[in-house]
Amino acid sequence: MFPLEQHILRALDGSVRSLARLITRIENSPDEARQIVKQVYHQGGHAHVVGITGPPGSGKSSLVTELAKAIRKRSLTVAIIAVDPTSPFTGGALLGDRVRMRDLSGDKGVFIRSMASRGQLGGLAQATGAVVQLLDAAGYDVILVETVGAGQAEVDIAAAAHTTLVIEAPGMGDDVQSIKAGILEIADILVVNKADRPGVERTVNALRSMLQLGPTGGTRHHGRIVQNHVTLEEQDPDAWQIPVHKTSATTGTGIAELVDLITRHARHLRDTSQWLEREKQRGQKELEVLLFDHFLRRFRSELPVEYEQQIIEAIARRELDPYSAIDQLLAQTNQ
Amino acid sequence: MFPLEQHILRALDGSVRSLARLITRIENSPDEARQIVKQVYHQGGHAHVVGITGPPGSGKSSLVTELAKAIRKRSLTVAIIAVDPTSPFTGGALLGDRVRMRDLSGDKGVFIRSMASRGQLGGLAQATGAVVQLLDAAGYDVILVETVGAGQAEVDIAAAAHTTLVIEAPGMGDDVQSIKAGILEIADILVVNKADRPGVERTVNALRSMLQLGPTGGTRHHGRIVQNHVTLEEQDPDAWQIPVHKTSATTGTGIAELVDLITRHARHLRDTSQWLEREKQRGQKELEVLLFDHFLRRFRSELPVEYEQQIIEAIARRELDPYSAIDQLLAQTNQ
Repeated sequence: MFPLEQHILRALDGSVRSLARLITRIENSPDEARQIVKQVYHQGGHAHVVGITGPPGSGKSSLVTELAKAIRKRSLTVAIIAVDPTSPFTGGALLGDRVRMRDLSGDKGVFIRSMASRGQLGGLAQATGAVVQLLDAAGYDVILVETVGAGQAEVDIAAAAHTTLVIEAPGMGDDVQSIKAGILEIADILVVNKADRPGVERTVNALRSMLQLGPTGGTRHHGRIVQNHVTLEEQDPDAWQIPVHKTSATTGTGIAELVDLITRHARHLRDTSQWLEREKQRGQKELEVLLFDHFLRRFRSELPVEYEQQIIEAIARRELDPYSAIDQLLAQTNQ
Repeated sequence: MFPLEQHILRALDGSVRSLARLITRIENSPDEARQIVKQVYHQGGHAHVVGITGPPGSGKSSLVTELAKAIRKRSLTVAIIAVDPTSPFTGGALLGDRVRMRDLSGDKGVFIRSMASRGQLGGLAQATGAVVQLLDAAGYDVILVETVGAGQAEVDIAAAAHTTLVIEAPGMGDDVQSIKAGILEIADILVVNKADRPGVERTVNALRSMLQLGPTGGTRHHGRIVQNHVTLEEQDPDAWQIPVHKTSATTGTGIAELVDLITRHARHLRDTSQWLEREKQRGQKELEVLLFDHFLRRFRSELPVEYEQQIIEAIARRELDPYSAIDQLLAQTNQ
């Protein structure tokens, strides 16, 4: 086995095999993730990171595959990270991924990787962040970070992007639960996929009215949603109008136009100096995630396992409340 | 305004108004959450905590409402916590909740509350944990914790229960993404809701075969999934056979039987001494969440805001990688 440095040099030099190895090492060891990011970070900063999220059943995976193909047609290289926090067992190979692999295989300009949770709070977000940095440094033009589900973890991961796509499908908009202010809040582009199915206009209209009337307003400005109560004349020219765009991954409808929208959003960010704002948000998220990991690991290393077990037992027996338990644990570790 | 202690006394004495106030204070202040849990924790431990999760569109909210009504018919009191990590704006009143309120209003044996994220990693899980402790101490027999979506945060929250229901709906099972090993892993009872719709048997069968053949096996034993490769004779009598149960919140089909299953699971946990194991798991989860909050808050309190901003700016400009930034920040705070 090559030492880490060799793999890094090779990965930055275009070796997909070394890249894959490094990602495995990032997943398995926070220490190696640290070493890798420290070495490659200054070489990154060129990739356009696109987060893609939305509920199950919205056809995200197929859409991402088609998106990758359309981006490739413009002679840009693309990396796909499929993040699945709910599947601790899947390791590196989801079924959807294998289907995708088949569709995109043979194209050296595409790199695909699934990442699943190792069960640790914050662990997946940390690993995903490190992998994005590595792929960026390795020279991929566009990095598509696809998250399954719509929970906080996915929102966090998707939000650590320059451009965030939220995918819906016809019919889902009818359910109160399925379109959420919080999910709309992170969207730069709203996509109604499966546009060949009935009910698509209803979903598009529902999303449009939520954008106009809902608490999220209809524009994103410097990374924050602003209320959209101003008239067109008064509107800030720096504000991004969130488009609602129809696609069908099966028929290919709207895919090329979606690439246009994504490109337009990147240009908008650069033209209005919001790109740096997004970079700062990404940096801040990453800091928080790393801090938590640092504290938890140091804490664990100082604490005898048996002692933690005793404390947990006492909590379960209601002899000790969790807050007093923390006090005792902290006293024990001199923190 | 009453002091905190007054509200606690009144809430434990049955005042719904004081209970609601205390929950608001838990949401707004980790310090008050701490004080409240410290005071009430030893009085809890009687409630049966039931986590309910599943993808958007599975009809969770309606099912939970019907479930609450059916539990009430058995003369048990019930509290519903609807956790929505994706909606930072909603505060205490989701649309679905208002519909529910109308259905269940006037019944003093039901308490309903929505909780939304305050945007802080771990903050929602912490607040939810504290609210469960408070409702338990206040004497509710059954606490239904409903989470929207299927991300890690929801899985964590739902898993901090004695019994976890995973809800699916017909048609969703056809999508590779919608039934996940990780989601099945936490299920004690699998519910196919909207059973009046076509395709229900297909979804039931898909779930059954995933339980039998998938990486999650078909039984839960002492809180962990075990592979189900043994014959019936060899099977551990302590293992819980995960049922796949059909319901329809609209027609009422299967709701009473679902209450039976939930009750049976609680009895199973107690009979096989797995109840304490679940309590320990809950304690451990809560410890982790509180630890993170502790570290983050202490760290922030020691660090000048401007300094953190400078660091973030340097990361965004690629002058500093996030890991080296952590080193610098930690040096600054003597941690």
